[in-house]
Amino acid sequence: MKLQIAFDEVDSATLLQKLEAIHDVIDIVEVGTPLMLREGMATVRKIKEKYPHVTVLADIKIMDGGALEAADACDAGADIVTVLAVSDMATIRAAADAAHERGKKIMADLICIEDVAAKAAELDEMGLDYICIHTGVDMQARGVTPLAELAAIVPVVKKGITAVAGGINLNTIEETKRIGPGVVVAGGFLNKAPDLRAAVLEMKQAMQ
Amino acid sequence: MKLQIAFDEVDSATLLQKLEAIHDVIDIVEVGTPLMLREGMATVRKIKEKYPHVTVLADIKIMDGGALEAADACDAGADIVTVLAVSDMATIRAAADAAHERGKKIMADLICIEDVAAKAAELDEMGLDYICIHTGVDMQARGVTPLAELAAIVPVVKKGITAVAGGINLNTIEETKRIGPGVVVAGGFLNKAPDLRAAVLEMKQAMQ
Repeated sequence: MKLQIAFDEVDSATLLQKLEAIHDVIDIVEVGTPLMLREGMATVRKIKEKYPHVTVLADIKIMDGGALEAADACDAGADIVTVLAVSDMATIRAAADAAHERGKKIMADLICIEDVAAKAAELDEMGLDYICIHTGVDMQARGVTPLAELAAIVPVVKKGITAVAGGINLNTIEETKRIGPGVVVAGGFLNKAPDLRAAVLEMKQAMQ
Repeated sequence: MKLQIAFDEVDSATLLQKLEAIHDVIDIVEVGTPLMLREGMATVRKIKEKYPHVTVLADIKIMDGGALEAADACDAGADIVTVLAVSDMATIRAAADAAHERGKKIMADLICIEDVAAKAAELDEMGLDYICIHTGVDMQARGVTPLAELAAIVPVVKKGITAVAGGINLNTIEETKRIGPGVVVAGGFLNKAPDLRAAVLEMKQAMQ
């Protein structure tokens, strides 16, 4: 099980500073959507320049123009690019092809998908590398958690790797671990931790 | 009927250069999603610095974190910000509130919505400023056009302004005009025109 840290509400300078403390222990570094929109692909380039061996995920949530947007992010250095599962299948196909042609990976984000098991099976069959259950921050605000949806997709994803995002923290990691995703995404609680490295190591310990 | 030009496959320097020729005749300038992702909010800031009176739409296609992402774009100078209609209603509400608090407008993009009339009615009731039918480039590639969907929403949108995007050009503007949207978005054919100003003026003439 791998740990992905999401950086959303920071600028790229702060992200690089935080990364200094955890680049050798974190599995995947996510440049969150708000940061991508604020500073563009520059953040991805800066991370890969300073830490070429870190796996970088560009959370660009592709909804259209799959080939162009995936290519842009991969060419900037992203190792994994996100596409929205609610988008047209042609968009998902084009994004996956563009990433794969560049030796990169694609993650489908299942946010706002109603029948997550059916969609996960379809995307898995298509050859998506990662299939991510995601309870958005606006849904978390009314108490929704991603674990029931995660449990629904783990049995149907055979080729790809499952992932889960949506407020996972030290209190919910035990239950998450029992369901068994391939990647756990954590943002809020890690970013708020007084000692980021300690928090990452504690989380990774709890995930074992 | 207003004309919105979408800039997708250019960098911000090229956009500013093109805008030099049309800033006094174009109604809305859209910073397209690929450009937003490549260069971030800087493009919006640059346009508003040089042409403060131009109406700028930031096509950030919000899917989560409605308040944060809408606020970021509005604070960078965007007059209109897009949110995906497929997103959670809490996200749409939060994005609209953040824009309205700043005296800005919000546009719902109905890409990949199945029942566009029902969704348009719901969003119109919520107070969305613009409701946009959008056939994505990946759907246009298989011959889909937005006009049937546009015809389905025009009668149900009472308070907001309807918009249409998806390959509209001089060949389809007559039919589009008969359906009667408030905003016509054109990208591809304007960007390919040898004389951009002449093409914009010809399109505006055809829209009258």
